[in-house]
Amino acid sequence: MTAAEKTFLSHPFDDDKLKEECGIFGAIGLADAANFVALGLHALQHRGQEAGGIVAHDPIKGFNSAHRFGYVRDNFTKASLMESLPGPLAIGHVRYSTAGSKAAVIRDIQPFFGEFSMGGCAVAHNGNLTNAESLRRELIDHGAIFQSGSDSECIIHLMARSFQKTHADRIADALRRVEGAFSVIALTRTKLIGVRDPLGVRPLVMGRLGEQGYVLASETCALDIIGAEFIREIAPGEMVIIQDGKIESSRPFHPATPRFCIFEHVYFSRPDSQIGGRSVYETRHQIGVELAREAPVEADLVCPVPDSGTPAAIGYSQESGIPFALGITRNQYMGRTFIEPTEHIRNMGVRLKLNVNKSLVRGKRVVLVDDSVVRGTTSRKIKEMILDAGAAEVHFRIASPPTAWPCFYGVDTPDRGKLLAARMSEEEMREWIGVTSLKFISLDGLYRAAGEAAGRNDACPQYCDACFSGDYPVAPSDQIGKGFAMKKAAE
Amino acid sequence: MTAAEKTFLSHPFDDDKLKEECGIFGAIGLADAANFVALGLHALQHRGQEAGGIVAHDPIKGFNSAHRFGYVRDNFTKASLMESLPGPLAIGHVRYSTAGSKAAVIRDIQPFFGEFSMGGCAVAHNGNLTNAESLRRELIDHGAIFQSGSDSECIIHLMARSFQKTHADRIADALRRVEGAFSVIALTRTKLIGVRDPLGVRPLVMGRLGEQGYVLASETCALDIIGAEFIREIAPGEMVIIQDGKIESSRPFHPATPRFCIFEHVYFSRPDSQIGGRSVYETRHQIGVELAREAPVEADLVCPVPDSGTPAAIGYSQESGIPFALGITRNQYMGRTFIEPTEHIRNMGVRLKLNVNKSLVRGKRVVLVDDSVVRGTTSRKIKEMILDAGAAEVHFRIASPPTAWPCFYGVDTPDRGKLLAARMSEEEMREWIGVTSLKFISLDGLYRAAGEAAGRNDACPQYCDACFSGDYPVAPSDQIGKGFAMKKAAE
Amino acid sequence: MTAAEKTFLSHPFDDDKLKEECGIFGAIGLADAANFVALGLHALQHRGQEAGGIVAHDPIKGFNSAHRFGYVRDNFTKASLMESLPGPLAIGHVRYSTAGSKAAVIRDIQPFFGEFSMGGCAVAHNGNLTNAESLRRELIDHGAIFQSGSDSECIIHLMARSFQKTHADRIADALRRVEGAFSVIALTRTKLIGVRDPLGVRPLVMGRLGEQGYVLASETCALDIIGAEFIREIAPGEMVIIQDGKIESSRPFHPATPRFCIFEHVYFSRPDSQIGGRSVYETRHQIGVELAREAPVEADLVCPVPDSGTPAAIGYSQESGIPFALGITRNQYMGRTFIEPTEHIRNMGVRLKLNVNKSLVRGKRVVLVDDSVVRGTTSRKIKEMILDAGAAEVHFRIASPPTAWPCFYGVDTPDRGKLLAARMSEEEMREWIGVTSLKFISLDGLYRAAGEAAGRNDACPQYCDACFSGDYPVAPSDQIGKGFAMKKAAE
Amino acid sequence: MTAAEKTFLSHPFDDDKLKEECGIFGAIGLADAANFVALGLHALQHRGQEAGGIVAHDPIKGFNSAHRFGYVRDNFTKASLMESLPGPLAIGHVRYSTAGSKAAVIRDIQPFFGEFSMGGCAVAHNGNLTNAESLRRELIDHGAIFQSGSDSECIIHLMARSFQKTHADRIADALRRVEGAFSVIALTRTKLIGVRDPLGVRPLVMGRLGEQGYVLASETCALDIIGAEFIREIAPGEMVIIQDGKIESSRPFHPATPRFCIFEHVYFSRPDSQIGGRSVYETRHQIGVELAREAPVEADLVCPVPDSGTPAAIGYSQESGIPFALGITRNQYMGRTFIEPTEHIRNMGVRLKLNVNKSLVRGKRVVLVDDSVVRGTTSRKIKEMILDAGAAEVHFRIASPPTAWPCFYGVDTPDRGKLLAARMSEEEMREWIGVTSLKFISLDGLYRAAGEAAGRNDACPQYCDACFSGDYPVAPSDQIGKGFAMKKAAE
Repeated sequence: MTAAEKTFLSHPFDDDKLKEECGIFGAIGLADAANFVALGLHALQHRGQEAGGIVAHDPIKGFNSAHRFGYVRDNFTKASLMESLPGPLAIGHVRYSTAGSKAAVIRDIQPFFGEFSMGGCAVAHNGNLTNAESLRRELIDHGAIFQSGSDSECIIHLMARSFQKTHADRIADALRRVEGAFSVIALTRTKLIGVRDPLGVRPLVMGRLGEQGYVLASETCALDIIGAEFIREIAPGEMVIIQDGKIESSRPFHPATPRFCIFEHVYFSRPDSQIGGRSVYETRHQIGVELAREAPVEADLVCPVPDSGTPAAIGYSQESGIPFALGITRNQYMGRTFIEPTEHIRNMGVRLKLNVNKSLVRGKRVVLVDDSVVRGTTSRKIKEMILDAGAAEVHFRIASPPTAWPCFYGVDTPDRGKLLAARMSEEEMREWIGVTSLKFISLDGLYRAAGEAAGRNDACPQYCDACFSGDYPVAPSDQIGKGFAMKKAAE
Repeated sequence: MTAAEKTFLSHPFDDDKLKEECGIFGAIGLADAANFVALGLHALQHRGQEAGGIVAHDPIKGFNSAHRFGYVRDNFTKASLMESLPGPLAIGHVRYSTAGSKAAVIRDIQPFFGEFSMGGCAVAHNGNLTNAESLRRELIDHGAIFQSGSDSECIIHLMARSFQKTHADRIADALRRVEGAFSVIALTRTKLIGVRDPLGVRPLVMGRLGEQGYVLASETCALDIIGAEFIREIAPGEMVIIQDGKIESSRPFHPATPRFCIFEHVYFSRPDSQIGGRSVYETRHQIGVELAREAPVEADLVCPVPDSGTPAAIGYSQESGIPFALGITRNQYMGRTFIEPTEHIRNMGVRLKLNVNKSLVRGKRVVLVDDSVVRGTTSRKIKEMILDAGAAEVHFRIASPPTAWPCFYGVDTPDRGKLLAARMSEEEMREWIGVTSLKFISLDGLYRAAGEAAGRNDACPQYCDACFSGDYPVAPSDQIGKGFAMKKAAE
Repeated sequence: MTAAEKTFLSHPFDDDKLKEECGIFGAIGLADAANFVALGLHALQHRGQEAGGIVAHDPIKGFNSAHRFGYVRDNFTKASLMESLPGPLAIGHVRYSTAGSKAAVIRDIQPFFGEFSMGGCAVAHNGNLTNAESLRRELIDHGAIFQSGSDSECIIHLMARSFQKTHADRIADALRRVEGAFSVIALTRTKLIGVRDPLGVRPLVMGRLGEQGYVLASETCALDIIGAEFIREIAPGEMVIIQDGKIESSRPFHPATPRFCIFEHVYFSRPDSQIGGRSVYETRHQIGVELAREAPVEADLVCPVPDSGTPAAIGYSQESGIPFALGITRNQYMGRTFIEPTEHIRNMGVRLKLNVNKSLVRGKRVVLVDDSVVRGTTSRKIKEMILDAGAAEVHFRIASPPTAWPCFYGVDTPDRGKLLAARMSEEEMREWIGVTSLKFISLDGLYRAAGEAAGRNDACPQYCDACFSGDYPVAPSDQIGKGFAMKKAAE
Repeated sequence: MTAAEKTFLSHPFDDDKLKEECGIFGAIGLADAANFVALGLHALQHRGQEAGGIVAHDPIKGFNSAHRFGYVRDNFTKASLMESLPGPLAIGHVRYSTAGSKAAVIRDIQPFFGEFSMGGCAVAHNGNLTNAESLRRELIDHGAIFQSGSDSECIIHLMARSFQKTHADRIADALRRVEGAFSVIALTRTKLIGVRDPLGVRPLVMGRLGEQGYVLASETCALDIIGAEFIREIAPGEMVIIQDGKIESSRPFHPATPRFCIFEHVYFSRPDSQIGGRSVYETRHQIGVELAREAPVEADLVCPVPDSGTPAAIGYSQESGIPFALGITRNQYMGRTFIEPTEHIRNMGVRLKLNVNKSLVRGKRVVLVDDSVVRGTTSRKIKEMILDAGAAEVHFRIASPPTAWPCFYGVDTPDRGKLLAARMSEEEMREWIGVTSLKFISLDGLYRAAGEAAGRNDACPQYCDACFSGDYPVAPSDQIGKGFAMKKAAE
């Protein structure tokens, strides 16, 4: 990095969230399927902003692909590029970053493609393999040449070494060898294939469009953008093979109790997506209601930290009767970086994105609702801004329990030592952030908001909540090999 | 346009709003002033997204400038570019498009610069000159070479022909020759100059930063981003000259009754900006309150058309007691264009930006609050989406009176014939849009919400509301010359 | 300049030549005239590599223009750009750099365009105005706004102030006010206009293509590329107006004795162009013949410094009987800059372009023929390379007289103090360069080679040879004002 | 291809040459070795213009790579890119195109990289493997995932499957499995490795720079550009391993009689490179001398087809006594494509590059010397241009025998059916091209010019001359499998 580049300001604000690492979308039976995939990926952009890729297949022109850094809207909207991706079958992927790689390289962008003796196959993976590192070493010892730093590439190499005769059977073979969380879509010359891991940690839904068209997507909002009808979720442990307008379903894995990621409800999924029959927005609204019941406070205004805290803040306001207001405005022209002027600007990183509406909060007792606290650094800066604007009191209410454990299933989390809740009690956090009060929703409250009236079933939890509970449904073997300490029974 | 480009979809959604044409920002007495200008323009990006320009002056390196198409964040964040704009004095401009030009050309991007015998001077203009065309013809007849299609260039040529000895006096000379609305900032080797037209149609505020630093900006939100303290608005008809930490104020024009643009309250300004001592957000919230009083309805949900309708929707909800909910989600990764797949997607333009939360609105009577209706085409599509999602009734409530007249003072409006309210009665509009009910706030209601307890003073209106009333405070002489019919006394 | 950029190597090799500053090309009566202009400018690229511009006129779409930095082949070959320049009339310009400006800016790229009361007009200028600075000051005092740092812009402003009724008359008016050297082409809605200054210093030729098509170009090689037939040169002091397939000729200036630039024969023009009825190649070949007569030497090989020294080297070889060989190879992939590795590479700048054929020159007495010596720095490095390769003797023969005076007529020359021949005698130069012998052709020899059998007519020279003789046909008034010392009668 | 792109003109001129497919360069023991590699590749740019790649290794920063389409000068001159390639060890590759791939993709650009259990290794290959297709099928059947369409990738996969313990032994293992022609360089964390196939078809030389620095390159001209001293050629069948300033040599293959590619002398190599102790320029000059003896003619001028025909033309002129002249000028600003104007320009493709000097050739009997005839289409167009210019007679003299057979050893040749000499006798070719006379040098003459005084030894030929003789030293097994008919004994 040159001196000049160092003067650029990195963005602390974005860094203080957990990040979903991927969104996937596939289409079959639709003319120029890649155009639908581009739209679907655009609707899933919140699941990965770093890069995107599309592989398409055309009976005459064969397999074609494009992998690009940047937003879908900036790449897959160009006529020349989209014309290079012809055919009625296509899959795509948007990504945040892979677990292992430090620097972004184009070879890490999915879908990955392999030429097999029975023909080519492209694979896109949402999730994370917890035994990828040992698999990789083993594969290299047996002559595999890895082209990317992405763990997902293991799937293609395992397929290449399978003795099965069809792509689908090879995918099943390969996925039986991996551990962790995965929703996978794959494309052959004639088939669109979708698979979810036995726990169903990451989402995958199916939709229909027109006579013969089917699509697979991470979330239902990607069906809405193209006007597709939502059929159903792919079940945990299910594989679907779509060809010629027909869907074939099978269960290639040992059965297991599902553990869907509860953080999809809290933050990752778009509020207008439907999960398990209800909208994410309603769950978030209900979290606010539960939070108002669990952690009431006397105050003048309920303000969301935009935009992810908004539905919970509305719920909190409606349950508590305290008026709701947009006390913090978000700059909709999201800037990555600006050059910091010589004269230092206090909290510049946050200012680029957020501004407090001074005349609204001046002298007021403000309840501030945010979705989560990760490192806590941004919470602290927002608190400073709102106090600078003259608020009398600041009461933080958090729409998730304390995030105290890293996720190893496809979410970008800091090391445990960087998680505020792993190092401090609630009161210590309150003091460090510097607010009048700080309350998190309880794990049971969160489960209730998500529709589990009786709260969490500790004997057999309904969700994966490892980031809150330390209860990992799949042992993260690579991490354990590197010394990661699992929660003890007593902890 | 080539055939390939024709397959791109233009965006009807954005086209159905009035557009502010410019934002301006100037800084003096600050090291690397251009970096502050870049931040200020970023905060003013909502006032003009097409292009931006900065001119800076350094005692040693003289005047330097950069004019670029695209967002501030994509251009004026590069170290190499910003290093080419050194010095403690800089002004900048973001623009939507100029009145006259059809195709965007780089020469139309402001600030404009002129080399005079007493030194260089850069000028940035927010507003529109209603006699620019006749001025331009006259100047060309006398040997002026216009380099842009922008009417604002007239100001530089009028300055060049003035006999005054200082830049400030030449600016005053030039602005006395023009008609229309203008907030102008200018930069010489040592001075930052700001002027507002006698009616004060367009905004301009002043702030202070550090010991010697002063800034001028279209709105206060641009002061907030750099942590500057808001001092005061430049008064209608006032010129300020800032040099060496001192402010000199004068009144170069004939006095007039101020007529600030009321649409700045309704839509143009950012909700977190302060105008006339109160926040724009509060005025918009109050419009919702007034609207609930003027046009109540029995319903289950109040939903904003995001994002501009949100404050009024909150006000409507709080006054009416009907719960507020985000029934429509906005895709935050705003895409300009995507290639429409061969199979036609119904309302694709709107879908790229908005999605209805189906499970929320299904079976509900929905009050939909929007800021304005221009052509009405988007209102119609949003209504379709919300009915497709299963809403039982749709009640449109509009946070401004019917927009029936074009603006000639720096706002991009369609021809009068394209304005829905110029062609139809309220009931005809309701039927054409296809909603259960449609109500606009009254002009008096809008004035009350803006703080005028007694409503509009028809004898001497407190605001410019020509777009609603047809009452033009400055006769649009170029337009009249081309046949534009002013409202008759009886109309 | 950042530290990183400093590690780039600037190219001493190219800096050690005089540079023609411009090439111009115009076409009328041809469908999509801009495509012809692009080809013509490509053929004239040797006259200016920094930037190029085209203005075209179409009866329906009016005037359109494009100005770009870089080679013609990299810009004016794109379909999207060329489609934006429709119409049967177009002019273009390639430039090296303008006299005054230090840093390249897009506004300096010609053609310049002015909107006049009788319609628009674009002007492209090859040459240099020796009174541009005083004209510019005068025009600014009278209200002109200059948009570029280019002196050629004066022409447009002078036209704007003329009282004449037609563009052509205004051009004549303007050009009567300027001093210096100019070949100008201009385009109105219906006419293509060409003018040469009374001395005819810079070239301008006319060609015909098809039924109604006419073109104007700096050199005949630009006619060849489009297959146009060469008609004749525009005469010194002549103006031609081409419209509807008809050519109108006039003489708007006082008559003068022509003084065509003799350096066009030596170096500027392409060898395959025709000037005054003979090919430039033949003149250069003949220079070699004269040089062999004037400065014979015993040697084993005649090698050109590629590529401009080649024709003279062939002539020298044929006259002297010493075998001709390509002892120095030019890398045809001309690189501007490379990063110099940490370990210093001797003469890296020259090595990037040239390589000595070692086994060819080892132990040989080599006659090296170059077109000119300006600063002498490159000559020195080439000598080093050839001695490193093992040559026994190096005899430099230069195809022009010593360049001892700067050119003010459109050629980029160093200050007089930087010209080797202005500071040293021939013997001093030989010693400084470090060669066995060094000889320049005499001024009379050069005239003979150019077809003047009796040599130079000192009473009334047939060419402008100011760079050799200091005999300036037009007094460079701006330079004299800044202290430039003309040659005294006795010198 | 869109309609717009169809209006671009493809370049027939360049298509009518055989194309060397690759140049390779490696450096060890030099600070910032990648900068040296960039310079070396620039000097080898004539061997491959489509793309280039560099892999570097640094003890701390590990392996880094960059692969780019376009010229070396346009990519590997940027400080930001070169700073991303640190370390004292680097190899690079420039390529024209691989045998198999139709469309250019970035994954096809070499060097290729593989991560093995004993560490990473990068490989760059000049040549072509004649059994690549069957190897590829076999490797895929055993689980290899190919990432490129390049046959050279087989080498990396064969290495991955070797049981040897060192990179060098795995390279030897892999290369013993392949058939065809190869010069290979490879880089590990500590070693620079170079290998030539047993026949030594493609060139590879070694040089020294400074104390510890060594370089490997396709040609000596790449040593010259960085001032490295030429040590020796890598011998056919030799492997060198360079580490810590020491060179270790071995012979991993069965010995064979060398068959260096004779076309390197005729056209591929740069004239200033040394092969087998003499300069390529001298061999080409001598070809002209032989040609003048074998095929004399009465004429007025000897003109080369620039630039590759020049040395032979000089030789022809000196042997025949007919004056040498540059009758055809090459435009040094080589343009790929221009938009053809509506009015068709005759032979536009050739005109973009070449122009005939009319006044030179008018009325003359011209001997035109070119290096080779492939399809013959360009020869025909050049003949047209020169006759259009008024030449009285055109005598074509070709500096190589008729090219009647395709090359399968790393040269891009058309199918046999497209080769003019495979379809026609010399007289038929003369008539088809339309020239007064046409003569090719004999195979024996070519051998004599290359230093073999007794001509070709038919029992055991000294060179690979399969493109002229059909005598393939390695059977092209993939091609034979696809039906390619080898020359019969009787043919």
